Amino acid sequence: MGRWEPDAVGRLRAAALELFVERGYEQTTVADIAERAGLTARTFFRHFPDKREVLFQGAEGLEQTMVEAIRQAPGGASAMNVVSAAVGAAGGYFGDIQVFARRRRDVIATHAELRERELTKLAKLSASLADALEQRGVESVEARLAAEIGVAVFRLAFELWLADDEHRRFDAIATDLLRRLGRLAPGT
Amino acid sequence: MGRWEPDAVGRLRAAALELFVERGYEQTTVADIAERAGLTARTFFRHFPDKREVLFQGAEGLEQTMVEAIRQAPGGASAMNVVSAAVGAAGGYFGDIQVFARRRRDVIATHAELRERELTKLAKLSASLADALEQRGVESVEARLAAEIGVAVFRLAFELWLADDEHRRFDAIATDLLRRLGRLAPGT
Repeated sequence: MGRWEPDAVGRLRAAALELFVERGYEQTTVADIAERAGLTARTFFRHFPDKREVLFQGAEGLEQTMVEAIRQAPGGASAMNVVSAAVGAAGGYFGDIQVFARRRRDVIATHAELRERELTKLAKLSASLADALEQRGVESVEARLAAEIGVAVFRLAFELWLADDEHRRFDAIATDLLRRLGRLAPGT
Repeated sequence: MGRWEPDAVGRLRAAALELFVERGYEQTTVADIAERAGLTARTFFRHFPDKREVLFQGAEGLEQTMVEAIRQAPGGASAMNVVSAAVGAAGGYFGDIQVFARRRRDVIATHAELRERELTKLAKLSASLADALEQRGVESVEARLAAEIGVAVFRLAFELWLADDEHRRFDAIATDLLRRLGRLAPGT
């Protein structure tokens, strides 16, 4: 304790991803990650409960960012415009982490347990967005529908953003999908 | 073998659900399920690989039904109308299984492993619907977006359908959600 570790979280995250790719997720231990990051296992456990959470801890911050965007949206905005603002805010949260996010995606893709964890986080995100919409006075079913649609768009935008030949920013991709959604919707 | 077991699958499914609710999912064995159904464990294993699949085996039939609806949709139909037809077809597949489906939901809700399995099946469903749309000539991103939206609507319709105070048919709920979606969509 006591010793200041500049950006311990960032270093641990980068080290973990490197090792997951090099040696495989199963074969990598917390001790390995700490060593690669030039830190102690004790420091690791100050920031993460286990190695799996190195991959998923960002999800809480993302959720907070998107919920906050819903809270801050202008009073008269429609449910879908509010959700669109939340999806756009995710882009600001991600910034320029594509290299990290691609490695993370590749690690997750190879483990059923990690894929399921990712899907669970997305389901939780949908529930939180729906709650935030309801708190703005959006009727319950409409709130849940808009939240589900928002997460569907978010997830596809994220997937496209990580494609090797994709050079647009996350926000641009999300905006494109929301525009397509407007044209897709039935019965209008 | 040899002896004809009328509706063995249905009897095993009903027995399993009863026991999962009475004793808990973990505490129920395949032998218990077979006994309750008046069948042998050997008969159980002719129909299901393990007790978990009693809850999830229907998912393949559902996926086939929805994919088939996409294949059969009229040539000129828009991607979203085709997906809407697939969601509607799910209602025909479900028929009148609400009592079973409510028990199933309650069992799944109490086990993280089962919840994750359910989410994985839905992700697979989305990928299959997107493939079927692409086979109709729908452009890839549009196909994936329409499939994600379709699964989002399906999942919410299913959840609402199982609510205790819900008396509408699955199709009616899905149609209502698709109509709401048309009003929700941004930028139209």
